[in-house]
Amino acid sequence: MYAFSNAVNSMHSEDVKRLMKQASGKSLISFAGGMPNNDLFPVKQIDEIYNSLPEDTKKLGFQYGPTSGYPPLIKSLESYLKNKGLAIEDNKILITTGSLQAISIITQEFVNEGDIILTENPCFVGALSVFETVGAEIHSIPIDKNGIDINALKSKIESLNRKPKFLYVTPNYHNPAGIIYTPERKKQLLEVLSGTGIILLEDDAYSDLYFNEDEKHLIKPMKSFGVKDVEIIYTGSFSKILGPGFRLGFMLSSEEIFEKAETVKQALDACTSNFMQILANEFLAQQKLEPYLTFLRSEYLERKNLLQKHLETYMPKEITWNEPKGGFYIWLKLPPHIKSTDIFKETVTKGVVFVTGRTFDPASRKDDRLRLAFSNMPKDDIEKGVVILSETIKKALKTSEATIQ
Amino acid sequence: MYAFSNAVNSMHSEDVKRLMKQASGKSLISFAGGMPNNDLFPVKQIDEIYNSLPEDTKKLGFQYGPTSGYPPLIKSLESYLKNKGLAIEDNKILITTGSLQAISIITQEFVNEGDIILTENPCFVGALSVFETVGAEIHSIPIDKNGIDINALKSKIESLNRKPKFLYVTPNYHNPAGIIYTPERKKQLLEVLSGTGIILLEDDAYSDLYFNEDEKHLIKPMKSFGVKDVEIIYTGSFSKILGPGFRLGFMLSSEEIFEKAETVKQALDACTSNFMQILANEFLAQQKLEPYLTFLRSEYLERKNLLQKHLETYMPKEITWNEPKGGFYIWLKLPPHIKSTDIFKETVTKGVVFVTGRTFDPASRKDDRLRLAFSNMPKDDIEKGVVILSETIKKALKTSEATIQ
Repeated sequence: MYAFSNAVNSMHSEDVKRLMKQASGKSLISFAGGMPNNDLFPVKQIDEIYNSLPEDTKKLGFQYGPTSGYPPLIKSLESYLKNKGLAIEDNKILITTGSLQAISIITQEFVNEGDIILTENPCFVGALSVFETVGAEIHSIPIDKNGIDINALKSKIESLNRKPKFLYVTPNYHNPAGIIYTPERKKQLLEVLSGTGIILLEDDAYSDLYFNEDEKHLIKPMKSFGVKDVEIIYTGSFSKILGPGFRLGFMLSSEEIFEKAETVKQALDACTSNFMQILANEFLAQQKLEPYLTFLRSEYLERKNLLQKHLETYMPKEITWNEPKGGFYIWLKLPPHIKSTDIFKETVTKGVVFVTGRTFDPASRKDDRLRLAFSNMPKDDIEKGVVILSETIKKALKTSEATIQ
Repeated sequence: MYAFSNAVNSMHSEDVKRLMKQASGKSLISFAGGMPNNDLFPVKQIDEIYNSLPEDTKKLGFQYGPTSGYPPLIKSLESYLKNKGLAIEDNKILITTGSLQAISIITQEFVNEGDIILTENPCFVGALSVFETVGAEIHSIPIDKNGIDINALKSKIESLNRKPKFLYVTPNYHNPAGIIYTPERKKQLLEVLSGTGIILLEDDAYSDLYFNEDEKHLIKPMKSFGVKDVEIIYTGSFSKILGPGFRLGFMLSSEEIFEKAETVKQALDACTSNFMQILANEFLAQQKLEPYLTFLRSEYLERKNLLQKHLETYMPKEITWNEPKGGFYIWLKLPPHIKSTDIFKETVTKGVVFVTGRTFDPASRKDDRLRLAFSNMPKDDIEKGVVILSETIKKALKTSEATIQ
């Protein structure tokens, strides 16, 4: 039975639910949605694919498929992963109903109520929901602009009296922090885990969305580093490179982990939609992904540049952030005496929303940050949104100064 | 953590896996697949729907949707359920990724390892997998041609020292038994549960597939009986009326159960594919379901009639069965000294497969039955398949007689 912890029911989702509700209003400027803009989806390409499918392939789309996934898609994914330096070797691919299902399957495979999971702080809120619903004990480790804090990770592992089941990280274009781990930091992380028996869960949903071709080498997954004594489960998603509505993700793991994962998946939804898998496979097999990614990267880069420019223009000097090199997010840092939640309460009345910092803290406390997603922003709204946000922050700064004096 | 019981890994799935492997060979005559035939899917209708979708609706198909489901589909389902006599009233619909996900969600919501679940015997093997992977203690109650054995159900409940979490039944065109509960038996079942606090999980995946319009009243769900002191969760599926590849199902439950179920689903796959939900919604909203069902019913009736006729012609008198009034299956009864698994071992070498009886027994023992699915059979194969099957059974009867003498 799922543990319906207060955390899930009240802390994270309260903000998120309110945001979603608010964000559905038409006049809102929303930096909240960590999703592509509807106008960026490859609708035309999928139209072409759908209408050129042979009749027999279409019929297959209506039918049950193997639990592990539609075999041609698994084959296409092997090439896709090879391009990222991931040799399949002794590993196997399991297609999942979104990459969140992969995280859910792995959690159900390894974690009992009360078991320890290590995460980053901040951490992807979807993964936190999964970990909390099974009643895991979450210990989080801070990250800086180059990745997870290695000393903090070491101390944490040493301080625990039980072995954590796994460490969950999103090293490439982190959600919400926007950073990418340096290769050095990835190497250090593997060194710390080496020999501990702690599994590394490497969630790589954003790595195709780099802004600069010259920095492509930075996305190299830890699973491709050839480290033999760390068990690494790698997960990926079609949500950022095709569309979340397809609900397609995958995991790459050792055969032993794959086999149990397949059994768990069998009892979760039997198999992932063949219909969606067939369309996604053609998208890959017909080489439509790379041209589409080129388009996406330029669109997101343009939005990031606009947001970066307006933040530089309008934000008071007390507000800092790291300019992202890819992905969807800018992660603003507020002075410690100003709470993201208070800023939110003010901006929402003026029609601007974002996701508050504490949403991404497993303990729901740390609230000196706020996440701005530029991925789903109409370009014309960005400046207006930043102006309202910066004015609200300036007002809060003044009020807090007045209070201090 | 999922309980990886031996049952799941070895008993049920061994046969099923072997069957699936065998059934993928081209020359096999397969009575095994509990699924529609590829040639029966409404490909043309979905083509028309897809190509007439407004651009904005298509874009929505690529995007995340609410966890509870695509609102227009929920609305269409309300009408669909009203036609079955199910007033929504205080209940809520949750769209799920196939109806197996609904069973999985309900199990995760209510069942801890070691908790008791009541099922029919025989029981849908997909549900058994779900119950076994969470480590439930399964107690099964026999069914006869009119439904669950009421006295056996009463005695079972009285004999248990703990309250079962729920009773799982598939009253309409049972898988594998092919029967439909009589209205009287449905009423008696509700009387037994009344006041016990045992939830009724009513799985209704096949009710649209009756063969005779005059018997339509028989499918009336127990949830529509107006019994106030039995908590009933009703589940349905698009797999039999559109296609399993859509991975679409739903559950109808009280608001309290719905809310927790939504939280569980949030952590399983966030939401069900908007793309698939949009196509399914148009299929319902454009009134394409009823004409398609008329076609399906006549196709399945024809296949059932062929199978029934050839069984009557070729089967020895020792073999009995109930002629089904709808659904996908005929459930043959063998004399007690002949094992379904032994028959299978013989027929598979001759190119004929089916699912063995013990697959559907939670204890994996009762093996005097075999399930023949006519839904996925090319009509021309039916006679040949029955001839091979009946010859094998006759041979087994002779051998056993010889052994006895």
